[in-house]
Amino acid sequence: VTEFTIDWKREQRTGIAEAVLCAGKRPDQIAAILVRATEARQRLFLTRLDPAQLAALPDQLTEVLDYDPHSRTAILGESKPPTRTGDILIVTAGTSDLAVAQEASRTLFFNGLEVPIIADVGVAGLWRLIERLEELRAGRIIIAVAGMEAALFSVLAGLVAAPVIAVPSSVGYGVAAGGQVALNAALASCAPGVLTVNIDNGFGAAVAALKCLRAASPRLE
Amino acid sequence: VTEFTIDWKREQRTGIAEAVLCAGKRPDQIAAILVRATEARQRLFLTRLDPAQLAALPDQLTEVLDYDPHSRTAILGESKPPTRTGDILIVTAGTSDLAVAQEASRTLFFNGLEVPIIADVGVAGLWRLIERLEELRAGRIIIAVAGMEAALFSVLAGLVAAPVIAVPSSVGYGVAAGGQVALNAALASCAPGVLTVNIDNGFGAAVAALKCLRAASPRLE
Amino acid sequence: VTEFTIDWKREQRTGIAEAVLCAGKRPDQIAAILVRATEARQRLFLTRLDPAQLAALPDQLTEVLDYDPHSRTAILGESKPPTRTGDILIVTAGTSDLAVAQEASRTLFFNGLEVPIIADVGVAGLWRLIERLEELRAGRIIIAVAGMEAALFSVLAGLVAAPVIAVPSSVGYGVAAGGQVALNAALASCAPGVLTVNIDNGFGAAVAALKCLRAASPRLE
Amino acid sequence: VTEFTIDWKREQRTGIAEAVLCAGKRPDQIAAILVRATEARQRLFLTRLDPAQLAALPDQLTEVLDYDPHSRTAILGESKPPTRTGDILIVTAGTSDLAVAQEASRTLFFNGLEVPIIADVGVAGLWRLIERLEELRAGRIIIAVAGMEAALFSVLAGLVAAPVIAVPSSVGYGVAAGGQVALNAALASCAPGVLTVNIDNGFGAAVAALKCLRAASPRLE
Amino acid sequence: VTEFTIDWKREQRTGIAEAVLCAGKRPDQIAAILVRATEARQRLFLTRLDPAQLAALPDQLTEVLDYDPHSRTAILGESKPPTRTGDILIVTAGTSDLAVAQEASRTLFFNGLEVPIIADVGVAGLWRLIERLEELRAGRIIIAVAGMEAALFSVLAGLVAAPVIAVPSSVGYGVAAGGQVALNAALASCAPGVLTVNIDNGFGAAVAALKCLRAASPRLE
Amino acid sequence: VTEFTIDWKREQRTGIAEAVLCAGKRPDQIAAILVRATEARQRLFLTRLDPAQLAALPDQLTEVLDYDPHSRTAILGESKPPTRTGDILIVTAGTSDLAVAQEASRTLFFNGLEVPIIADVGVAGLWRLIERLEELRAGRIIIAVAGMEAALFSVLAGLVAAPVIAVPSSVGYGVAAGGQVALNAALASCAPGVLTVNIDNGFGAAVAALKCLRAASPRLE
Amino acid sequence: VTEFTIDWKREQRTGIAEAVLCAGKRPDQIAAILVRATEARQRLFLTRLDPAQLAALPDQLTEVLDYDPHSRTAILGESKPPTRTGDILIVTAGTSDLAVAQEASRTLFFNGLEVPIIADVGVAGLWRLIERLEELRAGRIIIAVAGMEAALFSVLAGLVAAPVIAVPSSVGYGVAAGGQVALNAALASCAPGVLTVNIDNGFGAAVAALKCLRAASPRLE
Amino acid sequence: VTEFTIDWKREQRTGIAEAVLCAGKRPDQIAAILVRATEARQRLFLTRLDPAQLAALPDQLTEVLDYDPHSRTAILGESKPPTRTGDILIVTAGTSDLAVAQEASRTLFFNGLEVPIIADVGVAGLWRLIERLEELRAGRIIIAVAGMEAALFSVLAGLVAAPVIAVPSSVGYGVAAGGQVALNAALASCAPGVLTVNIDNGFGAAVAALKCLRAASPRLE
Repeated sequence: VTEFTIDWKREQRTGIAEAVLCAGKRPDQIAAILVRATEARQRLFLTRLDPAQLAALPDQLTEVLDYDPHSRTAILGESKPPTRTGDILIVTAGTSDLAVAQEASRTLFFNGLEVPIIADVGVAGLWRLIERLEELRAGRIIIAVAGMEAALFSVLAGLVAAPVIAVPSSVGYGVAAGGQVALNAALASCAPGVLTVNIDNGFGAAVAALKCLRAASPRLE
Repeated sequence: VTEFTIDWKREQRTGIAEAVLCAGKRPDQIAAILVRATEARQRLFLTRLDPAQLAALPDQLTEVLDYDPHSRTAILGESKPPTRTGDILIVTAGTSDLAVAQEASRTLFFNGLEVPIIADVGVAGLWRLIERLEELRAGRIIIAVAGMEAALFSVLAGLVAAPVIAVPSSVGYGVAAGGQVALNAALASCAPGVLTVNIDNGFGAAVAALKCLRAASPRLE
Repeated sequence: VTEFTIDWKREQRTGIAEAVLCAGKRPDQIAAILVRATEARQRLFLTRLDPAQLAALPDQLTEVLDYDPHSRTAILGESKPPTRTGDILIVTAGTSDLAVAQEASRTLFFNGLEVPIIADVGVAGLWRLIERLEELRAGRIIIAVAGMEAALFSVLAGLVAAPVIAVPSSVGYGVAAGGQVALNAALASCAPGVLTVNIDNGFGAAVAALKCLRAASPRLE
Repeated sequence: VTEFTIDWKREQRTGIAEAVLCAGKRPDQIAAILVRATEARQRLFLTRLDPAQLAALPDQLTEVLDYDPHSRTAILGESKPPTRTGDILIVTAGTSDLAVAQEASRTLFFNGLEVPIIADVGVAGLWRLIERLEELRAGRIIIAVAGMEAALFSVLAGLVAAPVIAVPSSVGYGVAAGGQVALNAALASCAPGVLTVNIDNGFGAAVAALKCLRAASPRLE
Repeated sequence: VTEFTIDWKREQRTGIAEAVLCAGKRPDQIAAILVRATEARQRLFLTRLDPAQLAALPDQLTEVLDYDPHSRTAILGESKPPTRTGDILIVTAGTSDLAVAQEASRTLFFNGLEVPIIADVGVAGLWRLIERLEELRAGRIIIAVAGMEAALFSVLAGLVAAPVIAVPSSVGYGVAAGGQVALNAALASCAPGVLTVNIDNGFGAAVAALKCLRAASPRLE
Repeated sequence: VTEFTIDWKREQRTGIAEAVLCAGKRPDQIAAILVRATEARQRLFLTRLDPAQLAALPDQLTEVLDYDPHSRTAILGESKPPTRTGDILIVTAGTSDLAVAQEASRTLFFNGLEVPIIADVGVAGLWRLIERLEELRAGRIIIAVAGMEAALFSVLAGLVAAPVIAVPSSVGYGVAAGGQVALNAALASCAPGVLTVNIDNGFGAAVAALKCLRAASPRLE
Repeated sequence: VTEFTIDWKREQRTGIAEAVLCAGKRPDQIAAILVRATEARQRLFLTRLDPAQLAALPDQLTEVLDYDPHSRTAILGESKPPTRTGDILIVTAGTSDLAVAQEASRTLFFNGLEVPIIADVGVAGLWRLIERLEELRAGRIIIAVAGMEAALFSVLAGLVAAPVIAVPSSVGYGVAAGGQVALNAALASCAPGVLTVNIDNGFGAAVAALKCLRAASPRLE
Repeated sequence: VTEFTIDWKREQRTGIAEAVLCAGKRPDQIAAILVRATEARQRLFLTRLDPAQLAALPDQLTEVLDYDPHSRTAILGESKPPTRTGDILIVTAGTSDLAVAQEASRTLFFNGLEVPIIADVGVAGLWRLIERLEELRAGRIIIAVAGMEAALFSVLAGLVAAPVIAVPSSVGYGVAAGGQVALNAALASCAPGVLTVNIDNGFGAAVAALKCLRAASPRLE
């Protein structure tokens, strides 16, 4: 059995390079994918690669990976210097939401953009958000990450003209455990312009933000 | 079978007069309770008395009831003029949340207080809340009603010193239908000081607000 | 009690005019909002206005409303001729998803855009989608509506470069009843670039699509 | 990236000092917050700080923390001797609910109050509760913690005039696992005057109790 | 197609005569079952026969049925005078729980027992229960029906030696709607000796009570 | 907008003619589909066509439809006399499950097969099933429909060599309401060989049974 | 704080001696309870005492405990030789359900009864159950434990006159994980006479069985 | 207590040899079953035997087992060389779904068939599926395994004439965690001919596929 079929044409077809979700894959499967990509001289972005999986890879592979433990992402292949931009902004409600925000940030970095993270501006202390309002209003697309303080999505979308891509995070306890409450808060929001991705899906939010930004440029195909 | 056992001593024991939840009761059961109360010369508060139930009661009972169709509440017995107070405030996120707010307001009225309702200050248009901030900060206890815009609970609790009693309302569609999302948003809120009651339970919120207010006065027993 | 506080500044602040969700509002509340808007010479978009609510409005109000029974939306005020565009496309998996698609279409119409609806291209008969692929690839932003055939979201997002705004519809029975399965399918999709809104929220999808499109233009404020 | 924005003004604004939820935070993030607080000469209350996180902090920080392993809370900064009071009471249904009760107790201690815990008075052995009734009736506000024996909330609220703040605990197995059953029992309670917070949220219950007590005093701002 | 296969031997095999759940059956199906039973000279107990179904039956069938609209049960065939007994007791928390209690009572009546119903002794007013304690302690098996005040199950089981068969009722609103909260409260109860049946299943509780009572008598087969 | 795109090639591609789910469609949409099929000289099978929808169709369409009110199905176009066969059997646990069984039966009839229905053989009276065992063992594929007595799926699959296609029905009350319990019972069954379709999906079960039967014959394409 | 209040009078009041649920308790809390019981010369039954908790107890306590690792129960104090009886029977659907069955068996042993366990008679192989039918019919009360093969509850209740106490077990995967499917199957069962306890609650089932058995004997008080 | 009752006649009765689900069983229970099978000279298939359970078996047993760590299955007894066939095909959406596919593959191998696995053809890159279409259309029965990309089930069933047995896998995060979303997507699929088994139940899918294939052959009994 050939255990995987990488979609090398995805970048050409959809404008975003192939990425590999490592959760649920055995280290030998991940290693085989990396070898294949190396042979095909393809850059690759890996998400949810936990330290134990990384440690189980052959040394020659771990050496060439650019691994970030906070976001649990890895990049295979050269990164050209990314462009700094404030067109996309990443905002988090709490410190605990940063890991997800960093997955989004690394995804954008892999795709050539370096964007600011505005951290810990949850609405329980509204002034923290209000103080950054000018900066927030300058963004064209905002990625917002929140778990227990999902009220951020509604408040933000009512304050800015940009679309808000909500990333519910699984931070929280009790009814909030697992992120479903934050997800539903994003979906139920009265403030139009809120778009949602799966819980903890910083990668998906970043890709969608890129696609939205490109929606305004001449088409790829 | 005697079908009910009214707790006439409740007011004496807990400071709040007996109330009757009419949902799920047959008109003849409600009528019998009203007759019993009349005979015992007891005042009574009825909640969730829908128009069809009211219409099925004998005329001599409907005539002596003070019925409010918006909140679907009725009062049996004399009301002395209530005291106006800003100690308790009722706030709603949207116009659709008013019916629940009015159940709270009528409950307080039955217990001798007339309190203001600050309507339609949902956080999707944050300025509506900010404009009323001084008024809100003057309240000792705030009852907040919200369905789709449950972010109001968190934002409010971060802005005022008073405890916020959150009443999730069942207004909404999709994931918000039934009020569970608003309920969970209230419970998961990071802003400490938010207390929650059952969905659409304006009555319970009002009673709890009264008990909190009295917690500061000399005890009843 | 003043029962509502319309956010007339919303258009200025977020680029999208105020809309009113009629579900859960009494006819007299809707009428009062319409009167207020008329006095303020403001255009207004009403969603989820069901025929019974419409019939209960005073005649002089229903006469000036442009009401569409399929999408249950109404427009108050003059509409200038909308611009035809293929930048935004609306796609439905089945015929039953059309009502939601039309809510999106009417929202865009109210905001000045006339966009095509590509109906009934669910993936159970994949050729129906493949036949329209060129047309679909020409869109900058795609709104996709699906209930039982939510596989459409994933397949579509893998075929086009544009971001796909998924609107789960509540069409379906058994496990699919209520739209939660379609919603989760959208969220769990492996194809990056899928963004989700609440079940049946054609309005929200259209507003978000507009905001994404405008993300490329000079900012409003 | 600055990873956190402490709300030093919260105490001034809402009467309760800032607290930090440690669950979901990395040790280096917690350490940085502690350093910042020390520099700003601010007292700080930490919740859900588990022993592994504590052990990973630099020694100079652990030495100055007053850590309680049962409630997993820590206090940074001087505590002046707290006032003993019976105005707030903490009650638990079972021994297993004590950890949550102690989180509430420590929160009150940090805010200057020392309150009694009445443990293991679940209603399956009703006499245990009845025996303490006089003591319970003397409280102005009661915090009740229960997991499997959530009937305590209803019974208690029917016996006392004080508001009951219910804290559902995640103790239990089968349907009771996770605390959702206890939570719903609190919300569904017929006995008015029951207010609810998130599962295991002893901290939130204590803060709300404080706010209720202060509702009677001259306002802060 | 023969649309049904009545289990005439059930009484012989399990000690309880066949009963027919009418919910979900068409009137012509119910009529055919009644005709068959009449021909076979079998007594029959019908549950959840709503007035509309009854009205659609042929007159000669409705005339011979002993129909009780409150419990929506009907008896076909002669009833010998039932034996009065206090061995089984039926208790309800509220007036709204009576319909379910009456389904249990009628099931016992059909099987030859007349048992007392002790109504409206919910624990929010504990004295109502305490006052009847002697009577309750005299029962060998107790059927307890409760919806919003499901705390009754735990409290009762801690006060009496008899097994308590809990029937959660679907009375209630918000989180309590549908009876799931009452069901879970029964299952999670710490007071051992609580046994549970399906929501609103007064019939099943009565049959089980009979079976328990008979467990002590000489076996049937 | 063209509101539908019928998949006329489905029969050629998958061996099963196109069917139309009428639930959620407006009468004018259903009428248009029927007109299109008539023009294309295509036979068509309609499911979940409720009497109100039927009554709203133009007379010339209702006249040519072969409508069955119990299964709410309709056939457009000539039916050649179907082949009687015992290769597929339909079994129901209760009388209330018959409507779903008849949807399956009509689907097979439309596709040229007339199969027996063995009704009301639920396992609460096991002898009813045991008596028909020889007949059941003669089937090659068994469609079993059950709501409250979903134990039928497991028991049946342990007794016969044929695969069992389980159709959970939405008959039932309390926890069983809506069919989710029956569905899960089918999925959790220990008896291998049980395959499941959506709740109430008699149509899908019949189509799958046909496909399984054909799996043994020379291929279609 | 005194952390527990043992209900020494429970045996006198309800006929069943106090038991201690160890899950969620710290070893020092368990130890203190054991010391207290020893001092009071009270026998005690401990459930859900896992090996790690046992190992953390002081040696002098573990030495006097009669610990059974399979059921994770322990007995403190002398056991007089139990009476063998077939009045209560314990039945399991699978081998994996034995741990729960043994909790029930040990509970009965502590209360003076030794009862047979009939293991692994799930209905997927119906003959295994049929072969034991005579033995099963001789029981007065049957405790049945099942996880994935919860069909056992329905089938059994249709075959015997005794009441069946269903104990859903948390054995299983996929939809069956956690035992909720087995629980719902027990509750939805059409076969009357099925009574249910919480998932994995072998202890509760045994106590209830004892109470049912005693319901036929002269009362305790 | 004899702890298990193996169903040696199952193969004769249903055409599929007995298999043992090891999850939830203690090593000594598994060992006893293996010893019994060896003594009875019966072949046996073990599923969900995790490495820790295997390691705890006596050496003489592990030596005679053919263990596959990826699928966590073991075979006891001789395997005759299996027949290669394309009548059954196994398809996976992603690499992470392979473990479940291999459980199916091993089950078929134990029953004498060797079938191809077509891996990683999820519809997010539709060309991967289209490229293999001819191969897929040659299968008589298709087993499809998918977790996050459950759209595969619908798309596949619309492209082939064979019945599709959907195996939802528990791969995924956020809303997809645990496999419930994939399961519901399979059940809600509009493409008729999709049949579903429990989450991760590769074994059940393989057995059902065998039964379907045999439905065409002369019966076993």
